[in-house]
Amino acid sequence: MHMNKTILLNSRPVGKPKPEDFKIVSAESEKQLSEGEMLLKTMYVSVDPYLRGRMTDADSYIPSFELNHPIESAIVAEVLGSENKNFSEGDIVTGLLDWKKEQISDGKDLMRVDPDQAPLSAYLGVLGMTGLTAYLGLMNIGKPKKDETLVVSGAAGAVGSIVGQIGKILGLHVVGIAGSDEKNEMLKQDFGFDETINYKTTQDITKAIADACPKGVDVYFDNVGGSVSDAVMFNINNFARIVNCGAISLYNATEMPHSISVQPFLIQKRALMQGFIVMDYASQFPEAIGQLSQWLKEKKLNYTETVVEGFDNIPQAFIDLFDGKNKGKMVVKV
Amino acid sequence: MHMNKTILLNSRPVGKPKPEDFKIVSAESEKQLSEGEMLLKTMYVSVDPYLRGRMTDADSYIPSFELNHPIESAIVAEVLGSENKNFSEGDIVTGLLDWKKEQISDGKDLMRVDPDQAPLSAYLGVLGMTGLTAYLGLMNIGKPKKDETLVVSGAAGAVGSIVGQIGKILGLHVVGIAGSDEKNEMLKQDFGFDETINYKTTQDITKAIADACPKGVDVYFDNVGGSVSDAVMFNINNFARIVNCGAISLYNATEMPHSISVQPFLIQKRALMQGFIVMDYASQFPEAIGQLSQWLKEKKLNYTETVVEGFDNIPQAFIDLFDGKNKGKMVVKV
Repeated sequence: MHMNKTILLNSRPVGKPKPEDFKIVSAESEKQLSEGEMLLKTMYVSVDPYLRGRMTDADSYIPSFELNHPIESAIVAEVLGSENKNFSEGDIVTGLLDWKKEQISDGKDLMRVDPDQAPLSAYLGVLGMTGLTAYLGLMNIGKPKKDETLVVSGAAGAVGSIVGQIGKILGLHVVGIAGSDEKNEMLKQDFGFDETINYKTTQDITKAIADACPKGVDVYFDNVGGSVSDAVMFNINNFARIVNCGAISLYNATEMPHSISVQPFLIQKRALMQGFIVMDYASQFPEAIGQLSQWLKEKKLNYTETVVEGFDNIPQAFIDLFDGKNKGKMVVKV
Repeated sequence: MHMNKTILLNSRPVGKPKPEDFKIVSAESEKQLSEGEMLLKTMYVSVDPYLRGRMTDADSYIPSFELNHPIESAIVAEVLGSENKNFSEGDIVTGLLDWKKEQISDGKDLMRVDPDQAPLSAYLGVLGMTGLTAYLGLMNIGKPKKDETLVVSGAAGAVGSIVGQIGKILGLHVVGIAGSDEKNEMLKQDFGFDETINYKTTQDITKAIADACPKGVDVYFDNVGGSVSDAVMFNINNFARIVNCGAISLYNATEMPHSISVQPFLIQKRALMQGFIVMDYASQFPEAIGQLSQWLKEKKLNYTETVVEGFDNIPQAFIDLFDGKNKGKMVVKV
């Protein structure tokens, strides 16, 4: 009889999450399937900055994780056995699932994926929530137009690297802000960004943005918030659109973070800031997946992953997101 | 031969404008009209917070005033003599004009107004830029829906008092934030606001907003920025719309003002903030004026003015805006 493993939320993180905030427990594997159920074996686990929000006990758009309960995220899993008429043994599925090596599911909200269409981990990245977030956030709020200038913060992250490439496909001048020269080299070489800024080594980020954006900033796809976003505000054009997709620089703050007051900038430039959560745009998922798949097939869209091996390393992979240790999508191969 | 008077920008204000930032000069009256010109006598002068921005030497949506040149704002004037075929002696006109007792104009961008339709000063207020700003900002960005909750800051000001009334006409729960009990009494008695908050005497504005808005805040019409707006952010609902119309609490700041970081709030609530400048919506002016005139005729819309007498008092009336000495629209009767 082999043992199953589950990762529980052990304590609510204060500031940056620590390994002790998680607990790995073993239990007997579950094998008894009732009518409609299936047994899933986890193959790839997505770790994402937004999960940090679910670890706090605050009212949010998605329920908080409960203490001593399993954490869930997007997962790709294989069907080991099925009493569900919609899925068969050997199918590969994706959806929000528990951080368990094996689990029983009723199949609700799970989607079958095609391993011949793209590598399996891509369904957690460019063809999953990550790609959808990049595409739908940019199109719905950023409303990019050819020859405009797009700035992307967290540009070497999972979402940012896709946003920048879509900007290039659509004919924009694309500037990426990331935290290392190595990442910035990747943005230019692999993803076609026109200009990059290393926010950790640049003295005057406001000026660096001005230099990289001679015609000003029309669309700002913001994954980070904080001082980088402050610097962008000084460079926005009239009628600029700011997509507030993430604020990773602020998620671990233990006191209410402060920034420059955006109101005078927004008024003077008649600019827009809008929060984006991909789940609100579910009706556009099929169209978006279709477009992303096509670009992927046409080799117009490239992607990179940071793949960590081993179920027990899921918590550390998640923690490493906050030190920017990932390039592109961070996934754990179980 | 009588003398004319002009008010010039004497120095660019640092912090709150001072009387010495303005200079009143006398010169011989202008009487020689060329073909197409007319001589105007100033009757009412509008003083508005946004003029503060034009007094600084910064790139903006509207050119800065030049030092030692006349200041301009919305004015109602009488035509004393006309060589312009579109206007006759005795006509009353309104538009952006210089702070002069008398001036020559070519009539460009001036509009004839009807003194029988409304008191003349109303064309600087409820039927002028003020009313247009309230109506078009609320409708285009606030997108108010019946039974939603609308919070208005600077509620006793010219724009705010109209915004709140439009909110009531449209069936919203309307909460006003202003700086004195007397103003708040007026908001309830004269303008039908449901609840009011005195931001100067309230200890915990965040809690006061929560109490006044049991269903949260759907639309925030912001005239002030700063700590009042910070407090509103804690109370916004999912999909809230924030109209950034003014930031009077920040206009006189001598250092870059800071506020709570709005990004995490906007993301969590998928909320929108957008800067509003009425000139961008000129194509909607006729429809808006029509609607405002009708509500005025039907006595659904009330307005109040603070009328200061005397040309020489224009600078002080403007300065007094920043101490909230006005109730409703501040105008100077010449």
